Amino acid sequence: MPKPSHREILLTTGLRLIHEKGYSRASVRDIVAAAGVPQGSFTNHFRTKEEFGLAVLERYYGYIWELVERTLLNQRKKPLERIRSYIDGLIDILNDGWTIKGCVMGNFSAELTEDNDAIRHRVVEMFNEIQGAVEDCLKEAIRKGDLPRKTNAAELAGFFMSSQQGATLLCKAHRSIEPMRRFKRVFFASVLVKKA
Amino acid sequence: MPKPSHREILLTTGLRLIHEKGYSRASVRDIVAAAGVPQGSFTNHFRTKEEFGLAVLERYYGYIWELVERTLLNQRKKPLERIRSYIDGLIDILNDGWTIKGCVMGNFSAELTEDNDAIRHRVVEMFNEIQGAVEDCLKEAIRKGDLPRKTNAAELAGFFMSSQQGATLLCKAHRSIEPMRRFKRVFFASVLVKKA
Repeated sequence: MPKPSHREILLTTGLRLIHEKGYSRASVRDIVAAAGVPQGSFTNHFRTKEEFGLAVLERYYGYIWELVERTLLNQRKKPLERIRSYIDGLIDILNDGWTIKGCVMGNFSAELTEDNDAIRHRVVEMFNEIQGAVEDCLKEAIRKGDLPRKTNAAELAGFFMSSQQGATLLCKAHRSIEPMRRFKRVFFASVLVKKA
Repeated sequence: MPKPSHREILLTTGLRLIHEKGYSRASVRDIVAAAGVPQGSFTNHFRTKEEFGLAVLERYYGYIWELVERTLLNQRKKPLERIRSYIDGLIDILNDGWTIKGCVMGNFSAELTEDNDAIRHRVVEMFNEIQGAVEDCLKEAIRKGDLPRKTNAAELAGFFMSSQQGATLLCKAHRSIEPMRRFKRVFFASVLVKKA
């Protein structure tokens, strides 16, 4: 039986390297070497690099989902406050060293070709899940009168998702947190303006 | 003297492969083979892969800049119409097969590490140039009364740039034009609303 700890070390190291260098540049050889585990332990746990990439993606999404639960799904906060605190959480994460690495889901979106459709499909599910949580916040805000009744929650949630990913991407290009701060300012000042 | 046509073939082929596969996955060996030129002609023209990547990026930006000149810089159109026609041009390009490939500048932004800072810096200059053209359109719209006087043109132009890149990224993830269409709808209906 393979040791569970090797799988764990491979996933932690793999996420770090794939986040830093991208999926293509982080070779299995590099990951195994950086993890300091025996060569064979990779193939004991993962049949292909894509299977490993999927597991790394789930690990990353686990961190993001913790933030989603603390913010977008947090029923103790007002609905628009949940969205605001989600962006604040992303700003904290970016400030904590992720500005130069970007978002693993966004990076996969940019990098993946037809050869890795399983990973791309999973990334799309993740985007849709977060977008759904934002849409629920917007719908609740509409019900509570915090947004006009005619607000199209689905439309704005989709716009939120792509614009947030774009802000993260430009943070990475600029090596600056400013695109995400600006996204937050404009989204709340212009997109979510309460109208009579 | 190296033949100019080999350089041309290498750039055309290199742009196609880097756009399709990403910078890391498109090896010099693959590009030379696909171009059908002698092995030596790559090194006759380009000292490093990064120098080649920069030349490919300029080639791509040439296509985008043609669109910018036809739209954002087109003085015969009204200023907000220029922005709208720029997005329409992007939609045409995406529909023309680029949905699955995304934007070369955005892909570079997601993919590049510290090893390729020259390319990243050039991408940032390109983003800033397009953003500046959008800002000029917004300022002119404010002067002409098409937008309220208190509109912050620089802020909205930056938001436009990152949100447009995010829309392109999500088009690539979803293999769908819808994120860009939605970006256009929301940007004009919500972000650029004319208020008294």
